[in-house]
Amino acid sequence: MFSQTVEYALRAVVYLAAEAPAARTTAQMAETTKVPKDYLAKIVQGLARAGLVRTQRGVGGGVVLAKDPAAVTILDVVNAVEPIRRITACPLGLKAHGVRLCPLHKRMDNALAAVEEAFRATTLAEVLAEPTDSVPLCDGPRPERLTVRGKGAG
Amino acid sequence: MFSQTVEYALRAVVYLAAEAPAARTTAQMAETTKVPKDYLAKIVQGLARAGLVRTQRGVGGGVVLAKDPAAVTILDVVNAVEPIRRITACPLGLKAHGVRLCPLHKRMDNALAAVEEAFRATTLAEVLAEPTDSVPLCDGPRPERLTVRGKGAG
Repeated sequence: MFSQTVEYALRAVVYLAAEAPAARTTAQMAETTKVPKDYLAKIVQGLARAGLVRTQRGVGGGVVLAKDPAAVTILDVVNAVEPIRRITACPLGLKAHGVRLCPLHKRMDNALAAVEEAFRATTLAEVLAEPTDSVPLCDGPRPERLTVRGKGAG
Repeated sequence: MFSQTVEYALRAVVYLAAEAPAARTTAQMAETTKVPKDYLAKIVQGLARAGLVRTQRGVGGGVVLAKDPAAVTILDVVNAVEPIRRITACPLGLKAHGVRLCPLHKRMDNALAAVEEAFRATTLAEVLAEPTDSVPLCDGPRPERLTVRGKGAG
């Protein structure tokens, strides 16, 4: 139900959060996140437009997370690339349903609300700080770099 | 986040549930559900493959709900046309994540689980029986036909 774009954007941002405040080239991002480079470039554009990442020029340049990982939620990332569209009006355009969704669309909207809620409740910092054997994007033990600022084993 | 296919399939099945046990032609279905006829034909094929509807030939023929509306959940319909794919293995193919999702994919899977749960908890009969000013698929007061067998004002 989550598109490839959403999956890739989350990988990209989790990677940048782990590397923050350092910038990473799209080549580095693509390698770790296993996202095709062209696809990744488009996603980075979307994330930049939403103010989640910015591009730095020069030596050590590349893409960098524009905010504190503790201030960015999964929902922020999803909404930056493919907004969750709540059902606010009858999709059939029925006049009588304009102000009040029918039980079918109310149920569908409730499910969307549950997803929003779950994604709003989790920050990138939490994703990275959670003690687990499976470190996001990393096949093996938690490396020194793949930690959140001021947290982790590093 | 729900595709057009899912939205259309739900409209089609809610309509057939309301008309059950009568069959309805795809032309009738298309008109009420406002789903393009060709698109609807494909969706009906998917619903038939999943055993949710069947096609009757002859006079009074058409598409008919194959089960009791109280025995069909929203999840059944969604999974018939576009299954909710839970995240059971690491999408990056990382070996270390094979058995245990990382916190990112665990969060995403939790959101999918919440949607599944919400959709599994609601039957077509419940959608149609819920007292509301907005009757599914119907612009105006609840018509005599648009009720569930044995329920409603009819």
